[in-house]
Amino acid sequence: MSAATGSGTATTGMHRRFVLARRPDGLPQVDDFRLESVPLPTLPAGGLLVRNRFVSVDPGTRGRLGDRETYAQPLALGEVIQAATVGTVEASEHPKFKAGDWVAAAFGWQEWAASDGRGIRVVPDNGLSPSTAIGVLGIPGLTAYFGMLDIGAPQPGETVLVTSAAGAVGSAAGQIAMIRGARVVGVAGGPAKCAWLTGTLGFAGAIDHRAVSDMTAAVAAACPEGVDVLFDNVGNAMIDSVLPLMKRGGRIVVCGQMADYNRPAEQAPGLRNTRAFIGQRLTMRGLVAFDHVRQYPQAWADLTGWIRAGRLKYREDVVEGFEHLPQAFIGLFTGDNFGRRLVHLR
Amino acid sequence: MSAATGSGTATTGMHRRFVLARRPDGLPQVDDFRLESVPLPTLPAGGLLVRNRFVSVDPGTRGRLGDRETYAQPLALGEVIQAATVGTVEASEHPKFKAGDWVAAAFGWQEWAASDGRGIRVVPDNGLSPSTAIGVLGIPGLTAYFGMLDIGAPQPGETVLVTSAAGAVGSAAGQIAMIRGARVVGVAGGPAKCAWLTGTLGFAGAIDHRAVSDMTAAVAAACPEGVDVLFDNVGNAMIDSVLPLMKRGGRIVVCGQMADYNRPAEQAPGLRNTRAFIGQRLTMRGLVAFDHVRQYPQAWADLTGWIRAGRLKYREDVVEGFEHLPQAFIGLFTGDNFGRRLVHLR
Repeated sequence: MSAATGSGTATTGMHRRFVLARRPDGLPQVDDFRLESVPLPTLPAGGLLVRNRFVSVDPGTRGRLGDRETYAQPLALGEVIQAATVGTVEASEHPKFKAGDWVAAAFGWQEWAASDGRGIRVVPDNGLSPSTAIGVLGIPGLTAYFGMLDIGAPQPGETVLVTSAAGAVGSAAGQIAMIRGARVVGVAGGPAKCAWLTGTLGFAGAIDHRAVSDMTAAVAAACPEGVDVLFDNVGNAMIDSVLPLMKRGGRIVVCGQMADYNRPAEQAPGLRNTRAFIGQRLTMRGLVAFDHVRQYPQAWADLTGWIRAGRLKYREDVVEGFEHLPQAFIGLFTGDNFGRRLVHLR
Repeated sequence: MSAATGSGTATTGMHRRFVLARRPDGLPQVDDFRLESVPLPTLPAGGLLVRNRFVSVDPGTRGRLGDRETYAQPLALGEVIQAATVGTVEASEHPKFKAGDWVAAAFGWQEWAASDGRGIRVVPDNGLSPSTAIGVLGIPGLTAYFGMLDIGAPQPGETVLVTSAAGAVGSAAGQIAMIRGARVVGVAGGPAKCAWLTGTLGFAGAIDHRAVSDMTAAVAAACPEGVDVLFDNVGNAMIDSVLPLMKRGGRIVVCGQMADYNRPAEQAPGLRNTRAFIGQRLTMRGLVAFDHVRQYPQAWADLTGWIRAGRLKYREDVVEGFEHLPQAFIGLFTGDNFGRRLVHLR
């Protein structure tokens, strides 16, 4: 693939992108996405041209593939699938970016992108893989940080239950709770993920949801004193099964609703054990990391410090090859991934 | 009925009480309560003897008649039904109470009570009926106060929706939100209650839930800009119907779950529209006024001031005759009452 060749000049060659071909019905299918080959973008006057190197796949994207507004507008049919990206600046007329810089952006599922520079930041040279800028130091890590600290607010000795605990958000959320002195139990799918939680990360316990028929009983066994903070990435059924075990003054962080994204609300399991809200004075709150953008610098400083100190470990699940983006995304909903899933563009 | 005749002396005569005869299955029945005639209590050394004059009936009591813990221990079979009471001191050896004082307590469904003085307070002579000590200045008013101000926290111009809005808690909650400058809409049962809300209390709107088949549509019509605060006394079905209309950063006060008290959680309608928690960054929190006991004096001062200024109106629904307590209680669940329901002991 040829590089861009300067302002106003038409670039030569083509690049690939995935667009929304049809709105998924239930679990997304490969055919919901269409691979297109389009001319390389040109360098805009005063802007920059970026070659994407890592593209994220995120469960939350599912909400934008339907036709209802969630926390962002739905994608239009034919639009490039939106996603966080990390890439290299290939050409720039922008004073803040120079060729060779690594930049984090949200260019979506495409190989190249042109930009006027807004919404893009240079990835600092912090000794970590640039991919971390859209992983543990990107929206997943920031979501864990604000969700756990602002809403969960675990106190030393409290019990924190994290679901999808081996995922990008959950693993960071659990470790942040441990840093705050809490006893942390994770829910994950399969023995390998559970072993990683208790072994590598040092969680006090792990529950393999694939091996459990009664989640309430399993959580009760792993959290004999009850649950002070539930940091949930799964959805209604999970929250409902933990509600009876929440302790007085407990907090429920509604971070993700993976299990409910693929069906309309009227088909979702309902929260029924809501009597606990009054009985135990519970608080349940949803969050979106974007709301905390002014606090990102502090969060990055804390997260980077914890990583350097060995207190915050992360795992990336890198799929090789742009063409595998749809399958990499779909696999999130069956728990194929083990850690932050990214697609690496060869 | 004879009055008490001094410390250590056996009182003569009998008094009546209602005890839990069996645990209700669904809507409570009259036969779930047993009327007993028992000897009058004796004046304990250093204590006091009270004749109850007003006894409360509260939907929340339903939770204590079952065998599961809610925010209080379940009542034992044969135990006196617990309730707030206002009565007159008939004899006292306690330095803080003298004969003739009006006292607020929680003596339950009985005509007389003996006490060591703990948990009892003298009703101040504030020019209001002593019954207000267990109404607008009792747990209902305090629940409205803390629920609306601490959790709902309405801002000027925000839209607040209150359910069971003609009830003791709801009517106070709505008016407190109006005092804070919010636009308040109430949900109540029947045209008389709705007319009272918009006429006497000055609510911006009222929805008669008996005349509405689609609550979401009715709330959308009455709250065209959406709902910033939902102060709910009804339960899951109501909350679920309002969730799609909640505005960014909205708050849901889980104050009562009247519609769900009479059935086990697994039969309750579920909250399904929970996607709004992330999409709109909602907070849902349950409350119990008892948790705020240190702030009661400030609350009483504010509530009394608002009543005197004509900004907080209240309505009492007084049923005459001790023997009608069970029916007065059961009627709460079909919306028989119009305002704070109390039973007056003749």
